Amino acid sequence: MSGEQHHVVVVGGGFGGLEFTRAMADAPVRITLIDQRNHHLFQPLLYQVATTSLGTSEIAWPIRHLLRREQEVTTLLATVTGVDAKLKCIVLDDGTSIAYDTLVLATGARHSYFGHDEWEEFAPGLKTLEDATTIRRRILLAFENAERDLDEDERQALLTFVIVGGGPTGVELAGTIAELAKEILPGEFRLIDPAQARVVLIEGGDRVLPAFRPELSEYAKSALERLGVTVKLGHQVTACDAEGVKIGETRLPSRTILWAAGVAASPAAEWLGVAADKAGRVIVGDDLTVPGHPDIFAIGDTALVKRPDGRTVPGIAPAAKQEGRHVAETIKARLGGEWSPRPFLYKHEGDLATIGKRAAVIDFGDLSFRGRIAWWLWGFVHIFFLIGLRNRIFVALSWLWTYTTGSRSARLITQGPQPR
Amino acid sequence: MSGEQHHVVVVGGGFGGLEFTRAMADAPVRITLIDQRNHHLFQPLLYQVATTSLGTSEIAWPIRHLLRREQEVTTLLATVTGVDAKLKCIVLDDGTSIAYDTLVLATGARHSYFGHDEWEEFAPGLKTLEDATTIRRRILLAFENAERDLDEDERQALLTFVIVGGGPTGVELAGTIAELAKEILPGEFRLIDPAQARVVLIEGGDRVLPAFRPELSEYAKSALERLGVTVKLGHQVTACDAEGVKIGETRLPSRTILWAAGVAASPAAEWLGVAADKAGRVIVGDDLTVPGHPDIFAIGDTALVKRPDGRTVPGIAPAAKQEGRHVAETIKARLGGEWSPRPFLYKHEGDLATIGKRAAVIDFGDLSFRGRIAWWLWGFVHIFFLIGLRNRIFVALSWLWTYTTGSRSARLITQGPQPR
Repeated sequence: MSGEQHHVVVVGGGFGGLEFTRAMADAPVRITLIDQRNHHLFQPLLYQVATTSLGTSEIAWPIRHLLRREQEVTTLLATVTGVDAKLKCIVLDDGTSIAYDTLVLATGARHSYFGHDEWEEFAPGLKTLEDATTIRRRILLAFENAERDLDEDERQALLTFVIVGGGPTGVELAGTIAELAKEILPGEFRLIDPAQARVVLIEGGDRVLPAFRPELSEYAKSALERLGVTVKLGHQVTACDAEGVKIGETRLPSRTILWAAGVAASPAAEWLGVAADKAGRVIVGDDLTVPGHPDIFAIGDTALVKRPDGRTVPGIAPAAKQEGRHVAETIKARLGGEWSPRPFLYKHEGDLATIGKRAAVIDFGDLSFRGRIAWWLWGFVHIFFLIGLRNRIFVALSWLWTYTTGSRSARLITQGPQPR
Repeated sequence: MSGEQHHVVVVGGGFGGLEFTRAMADAPVRITLIDQRNHHLFQPLLYQVATTSLGTSEIAWPIRHLLRREQEVTTLLATVTGVDAKLKCIVLDDGTSIAYDTLVLATGARHSYFGHDEWEEFAPGLKTLEDATTIRRRILLAFENAERDLDEDERQALLTFVIVGGGPTGVELAGTIAELAKEILPGEFRLIDPAQARVVLIEGGDRVLPAFRPELSEYAKSALERLGVTVKLGHQVTACDAEGVKIGETRLPSRTILWAAGVAASPAAEWLGVAADKAGRVIVGDDLTVPGHPDIFAIGDTALVKRPDGRTVPGIAPAAKQEGRHVAETIKARLGGEWSPRPFLYKHEGDLATIGKRAAVIDFGDLSFRGRIAWWLWGFVHIFFLIGLRNRIFVALSWLWTYTTGSRSARLITQGPQPR
């Protein structure tokens, strides 16, 4: 690693950080990619780990393995605790610091409880593999405890599953939990009927999947209802505890509450002391640089990116990847002496969401699909975007297996509290 | 579930408890199987989860799913805290109790630190899925931290892996860790050479795999040494802490110590207040009943079973399954009115162990194999004994993939402390 070479430090090995690093492969720079996890996670399928369809190792891969051929890239497993923009270095958890010439912040997001962080312990969100195995444990433990518990009210609460938030994650969780209860588990219990479970999806807005065109939201709602999901639109969760949730003024007893409502950006804006929106995202310039810091870029869920028409770029994988590629092109141009800012233009490729294993909605803007065809299309798209032949083969086989046998492959209760 | 029917309570869904329950399928009884885990674990392959070759969901299945067709069987996820032999009931963690007519204790074993329980936090053993992911995390974190740490001594300690115990588990861990360091990881690190890692296997006796015939032990030792493993025979670990181990009087700095030395039975003997050996195993009669309790059986690692020639039945899966089948036959005979004790005769089918992905040793008594043929035979035997077509297919594919591409499928650092 020659010290003369331009040194790019990338924080975060998600879709944005990884795409950026790969796009820089042929440039005369050395790159240090830092992540606090050793693995890149294929977030779009994380809900399938949480609902027992896929195993943890089928959607995550070691970042350093993905970058093993890029000799100019050094991968470090470490937690970044701050940035010193004056000295142009980042600070790590062990107090050491690393100098950069250019810094790319792709640190992602966590979920937000809108000022009610105390809700988190009762209503876990879904961002990491641990989140997924925690949700998986809670869902499966609810059925197991119901098989033990003879008090009717307690059993009702155990068999009531509340999902807060009607975006793609909430819709996908609700659909797969309903299928688990009504199609996968019946016949395996003797004292309860899992099909009696209630799955309730709560959305504050007037429709699910607000990013999609209205008729697809309508279709998704009825598809969920066909699976037995109760969809409550225009309802706010006003309280959340070990006993259940409060919807407006009514209490709904539940032992399993899942949070799919809001995201909050990682503390990158605080590190830099720059302006952020209320979700904590760095408000970047149209060239994705941090205002006042031409050598610092923010991409993916870390950044708030405005489109020419004033709309914001959505927090989805394709957007993060486009931003990563754009920043790579910008840095390469600069290395060639061209410093004129290059505005980022987001191209929206579409929105996809599944409802169980029979229906999906796809909105390509001018083109849209729904139902079974959409489900297959969704499947192929996700297999295609999975990293590595092995994962494509294994995930495809897992789905084929679940689809044909109706049994799921990863119904494990691990970690954390075992039975009461 | 009619209360008149003979009620058999089985504690433990391992090889013994599961085999017993299945063998009882056609009998006029009702059965309650209780386990504190929701899954049956295929222990013989657990070391492959610990060393990143297999994912957690490939070797574990929900017990109630495996027994879904046995309508007379109720599966409960619960922890048993005691037995009241006078009232003929077991007591659960929530204080409730369940009455039995016949009780089968198949509660398995944990590892034993020979009176040094304080060593456990520094030297985890391998019995549960959590143990496996803990060991996996420690092994992978050692390499990750070495890539960060610039102090040469610290780096040495991080790249030194100590395995205590030369039985099959110790040998298999040592071999697969050596391969990970020397074949899988090189090329993915920039600041360290993983191939420089030291793997040290410490065995108190005068040979590894003491259950095998001497020439196979000799072969296993040289096969390990070919993989770069240092095998120390006739050495005792006298201390174990965060800094490393003490072998006799010499200190060996190491940040990763794995325990494969001893097992201790679950507290079944204490529950009953009956005689146990120093490993805590219930000393059962030759019909596998607990002395003084004709309606209580103990099988698998819970029991110490003597063979006519005075040797003890080994704590391996085939033995537990044979005992499970024998107890089922005994109970069926009793239901038919025949109470004369039926002595259990153990048939030793053989011993198997792998050394990495190229060699194995198999001892069938009159027949023995070693080397590559043995490795393939070992693989087929384990695929065959896996439960369910899906797992056979997926594990076979995982192995084929690792074997041909030389990359492993589950290199995930999850749970517990992330980087320092």
